[in-house]
Amino acid sequence: MPNVSHLECGRCGKHFAAGKVYNLCDCGSPLLVRYHLERLRDGFSLRDLAGRAANLWRYREVLPVGEEANVVCLGEGFTPLLHAKRLGEKLGLPKLYLKDESFNPTGSFKARGMAVAVSMAKELGLKKLAAPSAGNAGGALAAYSAAAGMNAAVFMPETTPLANRLECSLLGALVELVPGSIKDCGRVMRERLNPGHGPDDWFDVSTLKEPYRIEGKKTMAYEIIEQLNGIVPDAVIYPTGGGTGLIGMWKAFDEMQELGWIGVRRPRMFSVQSTGCAPIVRAFAAHAERADEWEDPQTIASGLRVPAAIGDFLILRALSKSRGAAVAVTDQSMLNAVRDLAQTEGVLTAPEGGATLAALERLLADGLLSGYETVVLFLTGSAYKYVEAFEMAVEQSRR
Amino acid sequence: MPNVSHLECGRCGKHFAAGKVYNLCDCGSPLLVRYHLERLRDGFSLRDLAGRAANLWRYREVLPVGEEANVVCLGEGFTPLLHAKRLGEKLGLPKLYLKDESFNPTGSFKARGMAVAVSMAKELGLKKLAAPSAGNAGGALAAYSAAAGMNAAVFMPETTPLANRLECSLLGALVELVPGSIKDCGRVMRERLNPGHGPDDWFDVSTLKEPYRIEGKKTMAYEIIEQLNGIVPDAVIYPTGGGTGLIGMWKAFDEMQELGWIGVRRPRMFSVQSTGCAPIVRAFAAHAERADEWEDPQTIASGLRVPAAIGDFLILRALSKSRGAAVAVTDQSMLNAVRDLAQTEGVLTAPEGGATLAALERLLADGLLSGYETVVLFLTGSAYKYVEAFEMAVEQSRR
Repeated sequence: MPNVSHLECGRCGKHFAAGKVYNLCDCGSPLLVRYHLERLRDGFSLRDLAGRAANLWRYREVLPVGEEANVVCLGEGFTPLLHAKRLGEKLGLPKLYLKDESFNPTGSFKARGMAVAVSMAKELGLKKLAAPSAGNAGGALAAYSAAAGMNAAVFMPETTPLANRLECSLLGALVELVPGSIKDCGRVMRERLNPGHGPDDWFDVSTLKEPYRIEGKKTMAYEIIEQLNGIVPDAVIYPTGGGTGLIGMWKAFDEMQELGWIGVRRPRMFSVQSTGCAPIVRAFAAHAERADEWEDPQTIASGLRVPAAIGDFLILRALSKSRGAAVAVTDQSMLNAVRDLAQTEGVLTAPEGGATLAALERLLADGLLSGYETVVLFLTGSAYKYVEAFEMAVEQSRR
Repeated sequence: MPNVSHLECGRCGKHFAAGKVYNLCDCGSPLLVRYHLERLRDGFSLRDLAGRAANLWRYREVLPVGEEANVVCLGEGFTPLLHAKRLGEKLGLPKLYLKDESFNPTGSFKARGMAVAVSMAKELGLKKLAAPSAGNAGGALAAYSAAAGMNAAVFMPETTPLANRLECSLLGALVELVPGSIKDCGRVMRERLNPGHGPDDWFDVSTLKEPYRIEGKKTMAYEIIEQLNGIVPDAVIYPTGGGTGLIGMWKAFDEMQELGWIGVRRPRMFSVQSTGCAPIVRAFAAHAERADEWEDPQTIASGLRVPAAIGDFLILRALSKSRGAAVAVTDQSMLNAVRDLAQTEGVLTAPEGGATLAALERLLADGLLSGYETVVLFLTGSAYKYVEAFEMAVEQSRR
């Protein structure tokens, strides 16, 4: 039996009973899973985790899946937190860490969310899952659906890198290419599949439009706390497209406080976006509660090519509550940072990961991180899906 | 202090003192590291491992690095052993497992060997490391050398996939493209760099030409025994190029027996090669002690494009001692198997990984695995470096 008490709208606070199929709240906002955390104070401390499986299901008490048989596991989570000694020395940050999310099935952090969403879909009797994806989410959906024996459909922008499109096909998903951005893909998907909640309907697992991907993503925060032996980092720098990971981690810190794992202190949370698609950065600078849609989003970091995020208000709330910020960096600075990370630490990451180092350098130059010590950069995915983009960049740098 | 007692030639048995720089024995054969295993009977049982770091350094008692500060760790090893339930059911093998080595730095099992080899090179004061590579070994060497602040040079066949060449460059290695196979690359490397043992010399870390890559690779066997809770699998199917992993695992089973982790029983070891480059298969069929060089090696599985292996006699010895075999499969059957693995288990792997499933199907059809239960397939690397090859295959299948 899972420890879920109920689901709760992240905006209007309305409650929903556990164990049913949901997309958004009636008010159009994402639902968050709430747990009986008070019951878990015994037997679920940091010390109790030693010897558990090296994947995100080690935190099963705060995950929503009831039956063990419904867990679809491909080895997701518990990725390395690498101490970046050489880079940290260069930057005057002796406690700089890299959370390397390329150690996930399908090579990205998207696996965490899809592992839990597909497991819950199985538990709830759904059989056909669909989502728009600008890159890695599609591959993760295809992989977990295949492992669960379910059907998957992925709607991707025509500009999506070949590796992302090909992995979906090889994993047996239906792949539709759509002109425009991920937002257009979502629209076409809804027109084409008319998603619903019945066992024969296509179910919409778009970012934050179902309640469980965020539960998978939140485990990134559980892991950094466990891997830092209970120490709360001073700052977390996170590349932000749809923002599920940031919202999930922010939720997880509250849960960990209730569990007695950490105190009231939180890391400062920093979102990084591309200067070619920076709706959260613009909204944060304007002290807005929501973010307007970004026109004509352009960036090589396909995971950041998200012009509008349904969880924008939750992202902005976490940034401001944590005294963090949102920073935009250029594609070129991402690529330079990818190279710096590779040549200094031996860690090759996608442009989204490079963006976190580019942002860190900006924050340090602006004096916004002085006096802060333990900093975690999230390297969200594998570089190998970006070979075309890297090749172009290498060729351009030769000219 | 490490538990190394000495090094020993795998062919003539000559002993060498620990703590010095070595390539091959005077007789031209690889050196193997020997440990004081009798000293480790206390405090290094399977039960003692719970709570250790989720990487291959959890077996540090049987690894050669002395000083903790010399360990260059990027999170290598302790990869998932996935229970392939759906595929196993289809094949009548309820205990079929997939060892997914794409969960390694630079996306392949080569990271294990290079992690230990580069750490030892650091401990021994070397600064410049070079190797020929047909694919993943080069990327791994580049990554660990960068992390250690050392220079790396990689000599690759001109036909090496773009992703492999590019990762080496991005990670700061010197990359030389050479016409021909990995054997030609080795020759050109020796002519060009004149490798030696001094601190200013380039040191040759070619497969089995230094004693420590095998020590990293052997941890694959420690892991499957730990992950199967002490059960020795009935069969292991392993894609074999240079064969370091197979030789390393065979060595590790002996070590684990001395440590009291397992008994005298061994898994049957099966090597898989491509029909376009199958020197070990040919030699095994001829009951030969060594394998003749394969002329004009051709296969999309670049890790299997190895026409001659310096450890051939060690591979052949392990296959016959274990009552295993060597099997050749076509490139097309590898690609079909990649697709089957992807669509049945949600696991996307490189052609070398697909080869293991193609071989398993052959062994089952021939009745060579009847009555055997627990079978482990080694999926040695990430599919994402093979996007070009997969795209060609997908296009051909459409015609």
